[in-house]
Amino acid sequence: MSPKITTELLKQLRQVMKNPKYVQEPVQAYIVPSGDAHQSEYIAPCDCRRAFISGFDGSAGTAIVTEQHAAMWTDGRYFLQAAHQMDGNWTLMKMGLKDTPTQEDWLVSVLPEGSKVGVDPFIIPADQWKRMSKALRSAGHDLVPVKENLIDTIWTDCPQRPCKPLITLDLSYTGVSWRDKIVALRSKMAERKVMWFVVTALDEVAWLFNLRGSDVEYNPVFFAYAVIGMNTIRLFIDGDRMMDPAVREHLQLDSTLEPEFKIQVMPYGSILSELQAVGAGLSPKEKVWLSDKASYALTEAISKAYRYLTPYTPICIAKAVKNAAETEGMRRAHIKDAVALCELFNWLEKEVPKGTVTEIIAADKAEEFRSQQKDFVELSFATISSTGPNGAIIHYKPVPETNRTLSVNEIYLLDSGAQYKDGTTDVTRTMHFGTPSAYEKECFTYVLKGHIAVSAAIFPNGTKGHLLDSFARSALWDCGLDYLHGTGHGVGSFLNVHEGPCGISYKTFADEPLEAGMIVSDEPGYYEDGSFGIRIENVVLVIPAETKYNFKNRGSLTFEPLTLVPIQTKMIDVNLLTEKERNWVNEYHQKCREVVGAELERQGRHEALRWLLRETEPLARVQ
Amino acid sequence: MSPKITTELLKQLRQVMKNPKYVQEPVQAYIVPSGDAHQSEYIAPCDCRRAFISGFDGSAGTAIVTEQHAAMWTDGRYFLQAAHQMDGNWTLMKMGLKDTPTQEDWLVSVLPEGSKVGVDPFIIPADQWKRMSKALRSAGHDLVPVKENLIDTIWTDCPQRPCKPLITLDLSYTGVSWRDKIVALRSKMAERKVMWFVVTALDEVAWLFNLRGSDVEYNPVFFAYAVIGMNTIRLFIDGDRMMDPAVREHLQLDSTLEPEFKIQVMPYGSILSELQAVGAGLSPKEKVWLSDKASYALTEAISKAYRYLTPYTPICIAKAVKNAAETEGMRRAHIKDAVALCELFNWLEKEVPKGTVTEIIAADKAEEFRSQQKDFVELSFATISSTGPNGAIIHYKPVPETNRTLSVNEIYLLDSGAQYKDGTTDVTRTMHFGTPSAYEKECFTYVLKGHIAVSAAIFPNGTKGHLLDSFARSALWDCGLDYLHGTGHGVGSFLNVHEGPCGISYKTFADEPLEAGMIVSDEPGYYEDGSFGIRIENVVLVIPAETKYNFKNRGSLTFEPLTLVPIQTKMIDVNLLTEKERNWVNEYHQKCREVVGAELERQGRHEALRWLLRETEPLARVQ
Repeated sequence: MSPKITTELLKQLRQVMKNPKYVQEPVQAYIVPSGDAHQSEYIAPCDCRRAFISGFDGSAGTAIVTEQHAAMWTDGRYFLQAAHQMDGNWTLMKMGLKDTPTQEDWLVSVLPEGSKVGVDPFIIPADQWKRMSKALRSAGHDLVPVKENLIDTIWTDCPQRPCKPLITLDLSYTGVSWRDKIVALRSKMAERKVMWFVVTALDEVAWLFNLRGSDVEYNPVFFAYAVIGMNTIRLFIDGDRMMDPAVREHLQLDSTLEPEFKIQVMPYGSILSELQAVGAGLSPKEKVWLSDKASYALTEAISKAYRYLTPYTPICIAKAVKNAAETEGMRRAHIKDAVALCELFNWLEKEVPKGTVTEIIAADKAEEFRSQQKDFVELSFATISSTGPNGAIIHYKPVPETNRTLSVNEIYLLDSGAQYKDGTTDVTRTMHFGTPSAYEKECFTYVLKGHIAVSAAIFPNGTKGHLLDSFARSALWDCGLDYLHGTGHGVGSFLNVHEGPCGISYKTFADEPLEAGMIVSDEPGYYEDGSFGIRIENVVLVIPAETKYNFKNRGSLTFEPLTLVPIQTKMIDVNLLTEKERNWVNEYHQKCREVVGAELERQGRHEALRWLLRETEPLARVQ
Repeated sequence: MSPKITTELLKQLRQVMKNPKYVQEPVQAYIVPSGDAHQSEYIAPCDCRRAFISGFDGSAGTAIVTEQHAAMWTDGRYFLQAAHQMDGNWTLMKMGLKDTPTQEDWLVSVLPEGSKVGVDPFIIPADQWKRMSKALRSAGHDLVPVKENLIDTIWTDCPQRPCKPLITLDLSYTGVSWRDKIVALRSKMAERKVMWFVVTALDEVAWLFNLRGSDVEYNPVFFAYAVIGMNTIRLFIDGDRMMDPAVREHLQLDSTLEPEFKIQVMPYGSILSELQAVGAGLSPKEKVWLSDKASYALTEAISKAYRYLTPYTPICIAKAVKNAAETEGMRRAHIKDAVALCELFNWLEKEVPKGTVTEIIAADKAEEFRSQQKDFVELSFATISSTGPNGAIIHYKPVPETNRTLSVNEIYLLDSGAQYKDGTTDVTRTMHFGTPSAYEKECFTYVLKGHIAVSAAIFPNGTKGHLLDSFARSALWDCGLDYLHGTGHGVGSFLNVHEGPCGISYKTFADEPLEAGMIVSDEPGYYEDGSFGIRIENVVLVIPAETKYNFKNRGSLTFEPLTLVPIQTKMIDVNLLTEKERNWVNEYHQKCREVVGAELERQGRHEALRWLLRETEPLARVQ
């Protein structure tokens, strides 16, 4: 991976930063956030402005360009990747390290007095705007909205915004009709005494209307906003997708409906002016509910006295708790996904020793096996197929320049997943196709102990996920090892593979309490820079637990793994496991055998079934 | 404990809330916070205004009185106590429970439109003022400072503010001279580019000048403020204490000193006007550093553009990391404290079966034994001496109305500590003088497992204490049990028994990372309402740990118990312990034997020594 040469681009950007055609007054710094106008984590090519200007294309990062400097903030997952992708014009700001300045502190330290700092108001979330604006103002600078996106002005071959056909999901997938979701939303609105709710996140629009799209790779969403009133529904969406009879039927666009369920379809670009009109027509005490992560532009459309901002919207919270139809769909998706991975690992076991399988070939093969499964739609994220030292790059994605050949001498880490019409998967397995060293087994076993500690944890109802993060690290900590990422994220149901409001991380304290029906990942790891990476990830469902004393009826929770792919026993140093941990592995493998074995049998995949049976032999007690 | 009758007092308060002699405009609500003007947790009798108006005298709580209502917010430690101490005029607001409104929300729900809410600006911290003021303003109300404290106007027999003699501490206790502390503080000020630092917390003033007092029971502090400039030192303190030759010598008040170390002594009451004068004389870019918990009155003395507020002051952070002299002092204090408790428990074992020992007698006896130890000053908090159901009242303090007789049929919980000139102690032991039930042993053992999980935890340098909280709960959670308080708090060195900025709690995310030299408590518990309470508390020192891989030189930390008092083995169900946990108990007891045994021997306390030897017999492996 050679870095992108950005000298000329930065020169152009610095010119438009002073060009009165685009800015009212020259800006001395310009911020290029990661997101799109919906604060999406995964974005469409036309929104990859930060990658365009810097070369760094990881999923998280913020670029700031001043007249003299260009700096990039990103987190521990991307330190290596960003360093590889950016040229000498850029300074890497390693977030989470003690000496790394915040964006605000850095700006204050480099800007001349009384500077203007520009940003696209549609791209920056309102909460970030507020924090940044306050810090800059107190140091004598100004954060200013620049209407025209300055990157777009220099991005001559910027791709078009996608506008792909929609998929409608019936009750067998969603469990609840869009009408009932609107009714539930309006009842939450009534509880909080708000008259309007603005849906800005793409996965929230998709979930609310039981529609899916493919405008953003890996995320089955489509570009749209919605504004829900107590008696009106407005959907802001472009293209002829609303001409599709299936969509019209699904949304009952041509039916005679009670007016409060009649959907008004409006152009995507009209959201700001429509919202401003809503804002102008409010009478006192009529509040408008927005996410505090909604864009500064939309938030400003409602004057401050009328805004009701929350970190998580009622849709975000409702979406996180999967109903029976969604849970069953997720189970089915994970069984199919396991079938594909049994096929893959069986194939790799035979092919790797020949020295012909590269990381890219392995990733493609994984996609091929997945695509053979029913209701497969696409991958749920770019496959991390990494061997040896590449495994230590936490969010690595193989490209021709880095592509390494799998061998019997190196650890192979595969973090991959898919979108099926019935669910979303995300699984990491770490395999060795030769003989792992004692040290590799030791590290793997600590990671496994952490994985089990979370998966088997029992905790009272109302516990927030971040309180479980240290359980995943304890075995590593005991030996002086750790990993620089969180332990788990929420997972959507045929939706985004990363979703809020729950998760398991030492970093997140704003997470909502875990409750039965939520789905998160459990993925501790260990990374030895320049040498290997280990991660063991299952997607797990929060379920009620049986305990002896049941917290005086407060109730207990635990996790049930939805992922059912063998954990390579060859990598385990059984001496380091407690009896309880050994039993957990054996019971888990027993379940893989029964559930995935039956499906392999049904699909007539006998060789993969034999592989599964061999890989799930119980661990013997040692000594 | 019968409730305080407050009908008449509330009537008087409601009158002064409208009396133009005290308020510019009538206030429709008046807030009575817990703290004093220094935001102390423990306060002098003259500052116990909330207890005076409500009857509830726990350490944490905020009262709000409106024309119609009187409400008290407090946390889980005090739900039972507050309910017992307050009469029917008061509504108890149980903080931490889901349905309990915040003070702001409650005020908004009960106040008539356009209300004024009054508060003493010296008593309310600036951060709380800001939050409260903003919430009230957005609902059309106003938070207003009421100069004269309204409780004081109706409190006819309010005691005088104490003004006791000071104790000077030499280098053998403090390790660092006050001059060197001033130098270090000024260097932190220079780093942050501030010209002035205002010391508002009483323990910070005491620590900075290596002085102690006894103005507040249990806390060796004295009423004072300090304002440190880059070239000046102002100490605001009342009374003739500055006439004491030892104090004058210690502070070098009569020596010819470089001007920047010359202490100007000023009256306590002149802090506001002096600070206003400092504020008025600032040139641009001259900032004044205050804690964000400093009072609204003092914070407002400096105009906003000149304020530099932080949650933890540099003194708070420096004070938390104990140097070698302080650590050695804390060790000595804990050995003496253990001697006293060995005496006590030996005595209780003989006396309890006679049926003549009450909770109060036991508490007094504990104080008697402690007072026999060298350099004993006073207790470090009100002794929690509680048996049977009283043990479930987390911050119980025996009074004649509740005083229960210890018996061989009930669990006894003693949470107590002392101030010695060389250190502060805080220890909880839970004992049974007869035969505990299987359930009591089971619960005790889970609590012990949690205590050990924290005490033996190994974690990377830079870890915040709250990440360790769940370790203390895991064994309880597995069986559906939990406790409604944090796991640990910082402990001062011959200073406040509760101090920041570190701790171990699921509630605190603003804690500073743990580092070697910090001292915290480790005190999980379990409480069965109406039946018994269990808590096992040691004070522990953060020390570097040896690990196999040492986090790639990031370094590891763990804890060393300073408390060396046997944990009653009779209460342990050895079957529930892992081998590692059993070894921990045996090694801990071995250390108690060696260290405390030698001191008991030296002090000629042979009977207590025999008790110690018996109580520290190693746990045998079961089965």
